[in-house]
Amino acid sequence: MGNTVKRLAILGSTGSVGQQTLEVVRALPDRFHIIGLAAGKNTALLTRQINEFKPSFVYCQNRKALLTDTKYEFLSLEDIACHPDVDTVVIATSGKSGLSPTLAAVKAGKNVALANKESLVMAGEIITSEAKLSAAKILPVDSEHSAIWQCLNGEKQPAARLVLTASGGPFLHYSPAQLKKVTAKQALKHPTWQMGRKVTTDSATLMNKGLEVIEAHWLFDMPFTHIKALIHPQSIIHSMVEFIDGSIKALLSYPDMRLPIQYALSYPERLPNPQLPRLDWSHINNLSFELPDLDAFPCFRLAITAGEKGGTYPAVLCAADEVAVELFSSQRIKFTDIPNLIEQTLEQHQSIDHPTLEEIIAADTWARGKVMQFITGDNQ
Amino acid sequence: MGNTVKRLAILGSTGSVGQQTLEVVRALPDRFHIIGLAAGKNTALLTRQINEFKPSFVYCQNRKALLTDTKYEFLSLEDIACHPDVDTVVIATSGKSGLSPTLAAVKAGKNVALANKESLVMAGEIITSEAKLSAAKILPVDSEHSAIWQCLNGEKQPAARLVLTASGGPFLHYSPAQLKKVTAKQALKHPTWQMGRKVTTDSATLMNKGLEVIEAHWLFDMPFTHIKALIHPQSIIHSMVEFIDGSIKALLSYPDMRLPIQYALSYPERLPNPQLPRLDWSHINNLSFELPDLDAFPCFRLAITAGEKGGTYPAVLCAADEVAVELFSSQRIKFTDIPNLIEQTLEQHQSIDHPTLEEIIAADTWARGKVMQFITGDNQ
Repeated sequence: MGNTVKRLAILGSTGSVGQQTLEVVRALPDRFHIIGLAAGKNTALLTRQINEFKPSFVYCQNRKALLTDTKYEFLSLEDIACHPDVDTVVIATSGKSGLSPTLAAVKAGKNVALANKESLVMAGEIITSEAKLSAAKILPVDSEHSAIWQCLNGEKQPAARLVLTASGGPFLHYSPAQLKKVTAKQALKHPTWQMGRKVTTDSATLMNKGLEVIEAHWLFDMPFTHIKALIHPQSIIHSMVEFIDGSIKALLSYPDMRLPIQYALSYPERLPNPQLPRLDWSHINNLSFELPDLDAFPCFRLAITAGEKGGTYPAVLCAADEVAVELFSSQRIKFTDIPNLIEQTLEQHQSIDHPTLEEIIAADTWARGKVMQFITGDNQ
Repeated sequence: MGNTVKRLAILGSTGSVGQQTLEVVRALPDRFHIIGLAAGKNTALLTRQINEFKPSFVYCQNRKALLTDTKYEFLSLEDIACHPDVDTVVIATSGKSGLSPTLAAVKAGKNVALANKESLVMAGEIITSEAKLSAAKILPVDSEHSAIWQCLNGEKQPAARLVLTASGGPFLHYSPAQLKKVTAKQALKHPTWQMGRKVTTDSATLMNKGLEVIEAHWLFDMPFTHIKALIHPQSIIHSMVEFIDGSIKALLSYPDMRLPIQYALSYPERLPNPQLPRLDWSHINNLSFELPDLDAFPCFRLAITAGEKGGTYPAVLCAADEVAVELFSSQRIKFTDIPNLIEQTLEQHQSIDHPTLEEIIAADTWARGKVMQFITGDNQ
């Protein structure tokens, strides 16, 4: 074909983004080759993926559960992430498990297709400064950051402002009284996007948008005051960039994660993929917009404040949110307890400026313990 | 300031685009210097502009009516357009009078900020091939083409499809019976844009959008089948580009011609201009879209067909439209007669393929005569 085949390692291949990445690879076999696959506990699916894609390198939490005749080398997440045979590492793990392999890939100067929010939120300063040293490219996979990245393409001057769009989640326009009663099952009914459980719940609280603002701050070197969130329930405009002359560029498509995933993999090229949906303007009558209700959804402001303060606050925010979402999912706390628990944890935190990776991980551990302490205290 | 000052000649400085170009220059005196001004009959306004901007070169139809002490050299439109001291020529004349100076500027390898639609519609083939030879840059000033141009910026591959947005004009959703009764005064009440009389009436018939499709065909080397029009009454999205992966980029701003004018002048830079309005998302609730009603507004299809057939058809389309709009404005024909007259003229035309400039001008003259013949015949 004359085209270069990119060799991909997918960390988190059994998750939502991981599976959709494999769909893109399946649709474009002349362009992408899977060289590494890594997953957590879903060994049944990982086994099927290994049989189909025959990767050279594999990792999972329980090696013995992998029942396959395919030959592969078993490596750690970090060793896969920086292996010389890997061109692009897709970080599609959830939570803080993405942090260490992201840093390994960045230090090795890889192309890092980053779907894991926590890495940049917790350790944005370390990751972006390492990327500068190694000339690693961080290729955003989140639809919002992909949109901004694409809109900045070809512009000679920095943006004046970033506008991150948000669907508003399943509880848009709910009153505080209604929000107290919503269930974990309801929180998973996202109106427009197919995503994993954690990020879907984070979308319902608007924490997801707050984390994305922090991520955008690091990815695009933009002050927090110049990043805005805008509710756009149809999820057709994925984000916008305002330039110094007042012009705004927006990126539009149907909400389908395969599109930003594919762009991160094919960058700087675009590839035709007949499996991707195309916007049909005979069916789009309206795109609507409104400012977010920051009183009903306090997680957004908690995230911005933690991002602005910096230090280990964002790590505490992430960890406290992860535990709080777990507690909500297992019906131990109410939806409206999520921001309260995070806020209390942040209030008690002694932040460290310009933290090392170890200090970030220690803050994470501290925050997880602290949230459980609040809960145990409450339950006594 | 360390910035380069661009020397501008504005042909058509007393028209709507010309005056707005001077507003941009007034706001950014460190960046732009007026070196040439040319107008038609509005010598009173031109005199004031000469007194204010002190251009080196001037043209107008009635030289003696210019009462000013300012020293200047009186030159033809063509001589101003290709003068060595001019960096960028703004072609803001209306109708076919822009054709010859545009060609002169293009042949001289100038930056040509092109607001005159007719030049590219009538002589797109000649102008674009001359621009390739001379390496002249054609910088679109129309908001739609500026939007597309900006959205293509930085993209390595050609676009898959262009989507030109249209406000729909003042008669959007009018029935054929209602359209028969509309007046010239009503046609000038454009819902979103401040523009000249001819283009505002063309917006009401959708002829303007048809001419823009032909212009886009030449500017962006795009087949007619890949250029669509979409009604978007708020005029916030100025046009869109769809790429081969299905992603769409859109350019947004309040409808204000000064913004695309300024971008054409400042390109490849963007300049901050406090006088330009900024989109305020707390006031934008809705962007709506619908497909154009091509039966109620037949001018659009007439334009596309003329554009696809090529030859001297587009010149005849332009000329017949100009005369028909004049006749409608002076209340000699009905609004719905405009497309009928244009269609009849096109039907009787013997087109010449790959015409010379002389053949294009001859076709224009023929078409003007033909429309008047129809009218005189009708009136007998």
